[in-house]
Amino acid sequence: MNDQRVTLITLGVDDLARSTAFYAALGWAPAEETEGAVFYRMGGMALGLFGRAALAADQGRPGAALGTGAITLAQNFADREAVDAAFARVEAAGATVLKRPEAVFWGGYSGYWADPDGHVWEMAHNPFWPLDADGRLSLP
Amino acid sequence: MNDQRVTLITLGVDDLARSTAFYAALGWAPAEETEGAVFYRMGGMALGLFGRAALAADQGRPGAALGTGAITLAQNFADREAVDAAFARVEAAGATVLKRPEAVFWGGYSGYWADPDGHVWEMAHNPFWPLDADGRLSLP
Repeated sequence: MNDQRVTLITLGVDDLARSTAFYAALGWAPAEETEGAVFYRMGGMALGLFGRAALAADQGRPGAALGTGAITLAQNFADREAVDAAFARVEAAGATVLKRPEAVFWGGYSGYWADPDGHVWEMAHNPFWPLDADGRLSLP
Repeated sequence: MNDQRVTLITLGVDDLARSTAFYAALGWAPAEETEGAVFYRMGGMALGLFGRAALAADQGRPGAALGTGAITLAQNFADREAVDAAFARVEAAGATVLKRPEAVFWGGYSGYWADPDGHVWEMAHNPFWPLDADGRLSLP
């Protein structure tokens, strides 16, 4: 089994109901809901929503201030039109627009938005990184 | 194509050479190295290392302080022994130990560590979430 993988991304959130409603507005369906956590299937991996303070405690640093991280979660799309369509959906769902999709220096097309807790997502088309039919990305 | 997916995780780092060396010590091999960025294959997705300030600018908020985020990236393993072995490898590579692997309330086994920039990783065994032969996680 290859260790170069991520199987779960957990986002700390302030209001689980608010966050669940936000991602539901994007069309996401939970696979598992437990007391204090919600999990989504993400195509070979999972994404969880979990209380911010509970996440800090679980990380072994209770009380730590978990704020705006130096990280982006990105969704790649097959073309620019698909990026625009997806971006419009999240904006309609109430996402905070950080940068509308635009042509970028590396030859692709990319926009950024933030969820209700400030978690930053990118939506991009990278012509050099084709996706397979399931939307998976295998670097050339 | 399913929109419920993550195809790229980008970590903002202060010293690309230091971070690349750290992940090399974990046994990770870059698939792509460009001026200012390094990308790894992560089994159907990719992980990138990118300058912290460049990431803030790319996100459309140049000058923003990107610190410790409310997020964990997790690697699930087939059993507790595999967690312990992987955890020992990252500790030997110089990771900051946040919480050594231990039995946890949800019935699994989990530890946390941080990379040179404070990005938090979890290594866990979840007996309720089996992995396939490629290490992919499909929630039941």
